[in-house]
Amino acid sequence: MSERAIIEWIRKRAPQFGTGLRVGIGDDCAVYRPTAGEELVFTTDFTIEGRHFALPEYSAGDVGYKALARGLSDIAAMGAAPRFALVSLAVPDESFVKPFFVGLFGLARKHSVTLAGGDLSRSEKVHVDIVVCGGLPRGKAVLRSGAKLGDVLYVTGSLGVWKKRPKPRLDLAEVLLRDASAAMDITDGLAMDLDRMLVASGVTCEITQQPPVHRGATLADAWHRGEDYELLVSSPKRLGKPFHEIGVVVKGKPGSPVPPLGWDSFR
Amino acid sequence: MSERAIIEWIRKRAPQFGTGLRVGIGDDCAVYRPTAGEELVFTTDFTIEGRHFALPEYSAGDVGYKALARGLSDIAAMGAAPRFALVSLAVPDESFVKPFFVGLFGLARKHSVTLAGGDLSRSEKVHVDIVVCGGLPRGKAVLRSGAKLGDVLYVTGSLGVWKKRPKPRLDLAEVLLRDASAAMDITDGLAMDLDRMLVASGVTCEITQQPPVHRGATLADAWHRGEDYELLVSSPKRLGKPFHEIGVVVKGKPGSPVPPLGWDSFR
Repeated sequence: MSERAIIEWIRKRAPQFGTGLRVGIGDDCAVYRPTAGEELVFTTDFTIEGRHFALPEYSAGDVGYKALARGLSDIAAMGAAPRFALVSLAVPDESFVKPFFVGLFGLARKHSVTLAGGDLSRSEKVHVDIVVCGGLPRGKAVLRSGAKLGDVLYVTGSLGVWKKRPKPRLDLAEVLLRDASAAMDITDGLAMDLDRMLVASGVTCEITQQPPVHRGATLADAWHRGEDYELLVSSPKRLGKPFHEIGVVVKGKPGSPVPPLGWDSFR
Repeated sequence: MSERAIIEWIRKRAPQFGTGLRVGIGDDCAVYRPTAGEELVFTTDFTIEGRHFALPEYSAGDVGYKALARGLSDIAAMGAAPRFALVSLAVPDESFVKPFFVGLFGLARKHSVTLAGGDLSRSEKVHVDIVVCGGLPRGKAVLRSGAKLGDVLYVTGSLGVWKKRPKPRLDLAEVLLRDASAAMDITDGLAMDLDRMLVASGVTCEITQQPPVHRGATLADAWHRGEDYELLVSSPKRLGKPFHEIGVVVKGKPGSPVPPLGWDSFR
């Protein structure tokens, strides 16, 4: 199959939703028309064979799903709604391409994500880079630097287990926009990500409760394993399920009292 | 050096211009605030070792330059001005990272491109994926599908030679927005890209003049070699330098009369 035929196959099946995209796949650029008062958020994430997943443990469809889920999780952490995605895929063998996009499109349809473009190339190992654009009302983006003294710190769901097909927490955007002073997604281990939020916010915390531990995992897994794709949220409000209190924000040397031992790409 | 230290090194040196970016490197997402009447264009391009460049023929700085130049060339082809870029970089060895960004930042500064974020990972070979966002007045994007009967077809510059550090044609945005009915950048060989434009526009053309051939190249190189990063433009107007007429748009079976023999990632 030629590159042109593959791109045509993708273009025909790519989810398209009415969210401001004027030109999609097939031109030098995608063209997006923001609505009045709309602010846009952007995230990009690599998903690399041997680094973020192994074959054949992951199917091509799992990889497509996960690549998009990683991006959507970042969008969820800002309190935004996804608008469109650009997908760059390099593969050793073209037979990977179609099932990859079938897996990706399934998740995209669930969250009304338009495929706006991308790039296709060859590589010795599978490399995916995905960009997701999200939208939300001007000035409302929930940053990781906003945690305030007296806030309660929460995690969503239970932690400690790598999921092949994690569910990005896009269902919580409304609560985040209304009640959160800071949020981020948990990808490099709760201890590491908590440290990042507290450093960015210039505060520290007291741990009041241990995080919920996923079935089959240990408490150490919940703190350090990563790839949870749940949210860490700081809020002055009392939040109910699926938010679980883990601490309170206090004054002190910025950072986490739980030493971060999580993921570092360069160690 | 830890990933955190490298990201801090990048963040401190990353070009920042006042173009609507509210939050850059360091949060889950970058946050961009469009201005009233602004339309945004997006492009993404892989630059892969062994596919788009070879080491040590290319230095790390050359790779950084070229990765961004590829994206900027797509922005130029829409008649847009660059706003910001997201850079995803996977490398076998961290020593590649700093000189790569020095090369990239040099070009970014020249065109006022803010580095808004990205991703850093490890891989057996160097993989770069770059996203560039450009802006232009609403409804003004120059598409490749707009070529009209009677238009003159032009190429910019001279063709046929791969350049390590091509100059993206961002200088021509004003002319394009005013006079072009269609445009695209020449990356896969003039014959292939001309075919794409004419198919997208539902027209064909007569070749009236051969394209200017770069010193050291042949006419076949100019038609088929690719990686020129010059522009192919269709316009009802008479355009002067650096535009060189190559043909006129006529009715007929959509596509190019010169058989495309250019680049195909999957052949």
